[in-house]
Amino acid sequence: MIRIGIVGGTGYTGIELLRILAQHPQAELAVITSRKEAGIKVTELFPSLRGAVALAFSDPSKADLGRCNAVFFATPNTVAMGEARALVEAGVRVVDLSADFRIRKVTEWEKWYKVRHAAPELLARAAYGLPEAHRAQIKDARLVANPGCYPTAVLLGLLPLVEAGAVDLDHLIADAKSGVSGAGKKTEEHLLFSEASDNFKAYGVAGHRHWPEIRQGLEAAAGRSIGLTFVPHLTPMIRGIHATLYARITKDIDFQRLFEERYRGEPFVDVLPPGSEPDTRSVRAANVCRIAVHRPHGGDMLVVISVIDNLVKGASGQAVQNMNIMFGLEETLGLSQLAIVP
Amino acid sequence: MIRIGIVGGTGYTGIELLRILAQHPQAELAVITSRKEAGIKVTELFPSLRGAVALAFSDPSKADLGRCNAVFFATPNTVAMGEARALVEAGVRVVDLSADFRIRKVTEWEKWYKVRHAAPELLARAAYGLPEAHRAQIKDARLVANPGCYPTAVLLGLLPLVEAGAVDLDHLIADAKSGVSGAGKKTEEHLLFSEASDNFKAYGVAGHRHWPEIRQGLEAAAGRSIGLTFVPHLTPMIRGIHATLYARITKDIDFQRLFEERYRGEPFVDVLPPGSEPDTRSVRAANVCRIAVHRPHGGDMLVVISVIDNLVKGASGQAVQNMNIMFGLEETLGLSQLAIVP
Amino acid sequence: MIRIGIVGGTGYTGIELLRILAQHPQAELAVITSRKEAGIKVTELFPSLRGAVALAFSDPSKADLGRCNAVFFATPNTVAMGEARALVEAGVRVVDLSADFRIRKVTEWEKWYKVRHAAPELLARAAYGLPEAHRAQIKDARLVANPGCYPTAVLLGLLPLVEAGAVDLDHLIADAKSGVSGAGKKTEEHLLFSEASDNFKAYGVAGHRHWPEIRQGLEAAAGRSIGLTFVPHLTPMIRGIHATLYARITKDIDFQRLFEERYRGEPFVDVLPPGSEPDTRSVRAANVCRIAVHRPHGGDMLVVISVIDNLVKGASGQAVQNMNIMFGLEETLGLSQLAIVP
Amino acid sequence: MIRIGIVGGTGYTGIELLRILAQHPQAELAVITSRKEAGIKVTELFPSLRGAVALAFSDPSKADLGRCNAVFFATPNTVAMGEARALVEAGVRVVDLSADFRIRKVTEWEKWYKVRHAAPELLARAAYGLPEAHRAQIKDARLVANPGCYPTAVLLGLLPLVEAGAVDLDHLIADAKSGVSGAGKKTEEHLLFSEASDNFKAYGVAGHRHWPEIRQGLEAAAGRSIGLTFVPHLTPMIRGIHATLYARITKDIDFQRLFEERYRGEPFVDVLPPGSEPDTRSVRAANVCRIAVHRPHGGDMLVVISVIDNLVKGASGQAVQNMNIMFGLEETLGLSQLAIVP
Repeated sequence: MIRIGIVGGTGYTGIELLRILAQHPQAELAVITSRKEAGIKVTELFPSLRGAVALAFSDPSKADLGRCNAVFFATPNTVAMGEARALVEAGVRVVDLSADFRIRKVTEWEKWYKVRHAAPELLARAAYGLPEAHRAQIKDARLVANPGCYPTAVLLGLLPLVEAGAVDLDHLIADAKSGVSGAGKKTEEHLLFSEASDNFKAYGVAGHRHWPEIRQGLEAAAGRSIGLTFVPHLTPMIRGIHATLYARITKDIDFQRLFEERYRGEPFVDVLPPGSEPDTRSVRAANVCRIAVHRPHGGDMLVVISVIDNLVKGASGQAVQNMNIMFGLEETLGLSQLAIVP
Repeated sequence: MIRIGIVGGTGYTGIELLRILAQHPQAELAVITSRKEAGIKVTELFPSLRGAVALAFSDPSKADLGRCNAVFFATPNTVAMGEARALVEAGVRVVDLSADFRIRKVTEWEKWYKVRHAAPELLARAAYGLPEAHRAQIKDARLVANPGCYPTAVLLGLLPLVEAGAVDLDHLIADAKSGVSGAGKKTEEHLLFSEASDNFKAYGVAGHRHWPEIRQGLEAAAGRSIGLTFVPHLTPMIRGIHATLYARITKDIDFQRLFEERYRGEPFVDVLPPGSEPDTRSVRAANVCRIAVHRPHGGDMLVVISVIDNLVKGASGQAVQNMNIMFGLEETLGLSQLAIVP
Repeated sequence: MIRIGIVGGTGYTGIELLRILAQHPQAELAVITSRKEAGIKVTELFPSLRGAVALAFSDPSKADLGRCNAVFFATPNTVAMGEARALVEAGVRVVDLSADFRIRKVTEWEKWYKVRHAAPELLARAAYGLPEAHRAQIKDARLVANPGCYPTAVLLGLLPLVEAGAVDLDHLIADAKSGVSGAGKKTEEHLLFSEASDNFKAYGVAGHRHWPEIRQGLEAAAGRSIGLTFVPHLTPMIRGIHATLYARITKDIDFQRLFEERYRGEPFVDVLPPGSEPDTRSVRAANVCRIAVHRPHGGDMLVVISVIDNLVKGASGQAVQNMNIMFGLEETLGLSQLAIVP
Repeated sequence: MIRIGIVGGTGYTGIELLRILAQHPQAELAVITSRKEAGIKVTELFPSLRGAVALAFSDPSKADLGRCNAVFFATPNTVAMGEARALVEAGVRVVDLSADFRIRKVTEWEKWYKVRHAAPELLARAAYGLPEAHRAQIKDARLVANPGCYPTAVLLGLLPLVEAGAVDLDHLIADAKSGVSGAGKKTEEHLLFSEASDNFKAYGVAGHRHWPEIRQGLEAAAGRSIGLTFVPHLTPMIRGIHATLYARITKDIDFQRLFEERYRGEPFVDVLPPGSEPDTRSVRAANVCRIAVHRPHGGDMLVVISVIDNLVKGASGQAVQNMNIMFGLEETLGLSQLAIVP
């Protein structure tokens, strides 16, 4: 059994980790911290877990995370970078669901996150936790930077094209739509039901923190700089990301086959038959990315659709997938739950 | 392994049965029928099941259901009553998720369902599949009438009061609110997104088919006739029933304790601490009924809140619970999935 | 033209006042205050009003409200009670959309609102702004307490019964469901989209501030104390209140006719034909209350359904209706907008 | 007063026409037809119009539309093309909200709509009712083809660029998201609440009937063939279209100014200040298109956002705007209603 600690377990990635790990055959929930809720039983905050989780929240300053085998940070940005080093040095495997270790270049990270990075030496040692691209590094890593939800959906949809060098790399477009839980459990006005419901809008058009993260992933695959226009949108649903990706074709190959071969054997990437239009609920609450490849009217513009549940394959499910890899377990262990439809 | 057949598996209770049974350790999905979709792979209709269900839909006329150990009817009303007899005689255990066998008195059934009953002799032999009230009969039954979603929520919320004879039995009130999936996958105007979204309404105020079913359950418990006003409402969510139950107190007892003792040991009924106000998502996709007991301002009106997922404890989850009981399995087998929050 | 001031116009009742008044033929929007947004153009906060509202928000301390003919308080509770006196003394007509002047008994008000009332002498002078019950007082009032949204829906649905003395006044039940905008534009967790969407719950079962307000209205009509159980619920829609009201019949009269006669000539109360089940969208964005009267199975329990838009007839529309009455205008002026369907 | 007839008024564009025209100072609703609802009062079907519309539905075969001054077709495709000629010859002005007269080339129309066109000679005489592009023709037309909802949003967002020849015309991209009412009041499975809610999906990727309509408009403006990739998506809201448009810049001009000048004086196109991200509710129930122009990171990809209410500027509001133009009325008459927020 793996002794698990969760730092900051009161948000959406926190409760989703709890839901998944409470049913994971090799996980033992040992510690969960929350400054605000210290002393409160987890089920008092989350009655949906009654009968399945017996833990209470601990005060972070008193929690003995060093005795865990694996610690997940489900905290706002800038927390993990201050605490990860001590855990790593104590031999604990760390999966950070925040953005602290996702960008390898410290200057780039600091530009986008507007604070000084507290552990720049760990940036280079952290594995980027997209198993379909970095499985080997994750296996050996002591610290995994769990990818952002948009980057997961967009990278899985664009990587085969970029690796194959078959599209115009200077004008990639990612038009992405996210459910509201992607913003976390933040009490901000635009996330209120009365604001977000029966409404649709773009945001962050001028610049979004997931843009450099996606570019970093694409450029690593391309071995050169790429041009990417990324427009995220808020759509009135709780969970789900739908990325519609546009790329001008420069090499005429069989794109359906390209994707099928790239992801053959991947347990959590499902390349759909030609003509498919996957909806987000086909992955709701499941650790899957479903992808469809289209070439409308046989023209020179490729359209790739990539859908995930932002809280599962886009966050907590992928984090557990990374844990499974780090501990040499079967990668699918505890992650076989099916999507909730309707 | 129990060889399973599902008749009419293209609706919401059908896909929910598939989701649950595909992950049930003792179930083997052997046959699923659909006249309309015969020959089509299940995953073509339900891509969310890709990788988990390999079956194709069979033509009902050719499907060999007699070789199954258990057959679930997830059909519209009046189908099961025509087909159940042959299966029962062939030794197959049958769970009917439709309304065909829920009302014991054939005249009453025919009054509400407006057709002649095709198997009146089976009505008396069918067990009413609310395990918390009829576990012994279910265990021995060859045919189980799986309760309606409203009756499940309302009966679990009122039975302790009625059994204790502690409230005015002539003026019980059940104000129930249902998510839209409770109406099934029917293409009716009022179920369209543009009609049901951002909207709230009562329906069936003059009379709803679940009213006689609830009364039958309450009267059996009371041993006398009861008076019940039942107003169902349509609320803009997919899954969930929230029943707010009102009963005038006639005997001054500890109602919280009454409920806790009545449901002690029940794996799927959760009596919440005093003061709780359970929301429907605390049971979304889980086979649980959560109940809270209130006595506002210490007056003589008791308010009981009962929430379920209409497709799980209100339909397919309870059906599998009944199957577990009928086959002598642990009642919770394959039903431990936690609610999806948020 | 009536020179209008709005205090605290950044919330939902504020923008709804702006929408209505910008199209009102006798209203001139003169001042709108907001501490936080002072100096900002209204349309910068609310782009939906571009082209229709030219005002900027003023600092409350500098706004010259005394030169207005009518001032609306669209503020959180406890603001109006501190500022209304000076305005009233300056000859300004005041409509308070908050709860500060709704309860006549100061001790009762202070018990529910947990602060000392700053203008108890105004409590008795304020008219309760439900025109269908208090039109004469409103006409002569300098200060109108605009009713709460739940009280508007529940009182309009119960008053005919109470005035007629035809039901059991000790056991009235109001099961009310509200859209999320009823809670205002507050950044509280339970109002987030990811919390409130695809969810349903009761709240305030032990006691809600609208309970004494409703009781006060009913007791005034009954001339005696009454017993009321009031359970509000949050339903995932933006606008709308649906009150399902239960009353045991004690006098056998024609209830449909009772309601039709009680509201004959009322421009904003619509008694529907027998058998109707009004949905909330039939009043969305319109200043109307629609009512249906049911007696299920001909029994002794009456069911009355009452629907309003909480922001219009339940707040800003009713406030303008009150203004029209106070200034001797036609009561329907500027309030003829039709409901938005779908 | 203009005597108005509406053919097929039971769908969403029908009720929206009724809502707008019932409040239009120069419109007199004279006839409304429906085969299915003949004899039924309009308010029986649409209680939201109680008190405002006194008409009953007429049988189409008996309705005397020839005595109307203006007739709107709010029918499914292929109805108007059979009936328009007789009306036009009788001197009635016709506005067709269906697709029958939108495509000028009959072979192209027949390819996409899969039937023989019944009035090909009218195709050339019909004005395309996008006033911002064809005001002069509309003024003189006897028959106006009211644009599709997607084409309205996409054309208003792309026309300035195409007219200026400032972008790569071979690789235009329109990623469009529509509320569910855009599909009409059709009882199809994918439009059910339980299917469309809490879900997001692309559809018609291989080819959508609005694609040739948009291309026709762009090519007319460009004077050459253009390349357009158009991907529509279904988003869980009732009303609203959000088009995110991508165009590679080929000429370095001030794009903000280009749009402001192109739409200066247009009453129903609102070019927002730089940096704006308009949401669909800023136009909900209002006859406005709001547009924002972005150039992320100062690169060579322009992003234009265009939002409308699909039932107003995308259908019935624009139809009344066209009527106003055809009858020499002020273009904004009866169309000044403000958006409903929240």
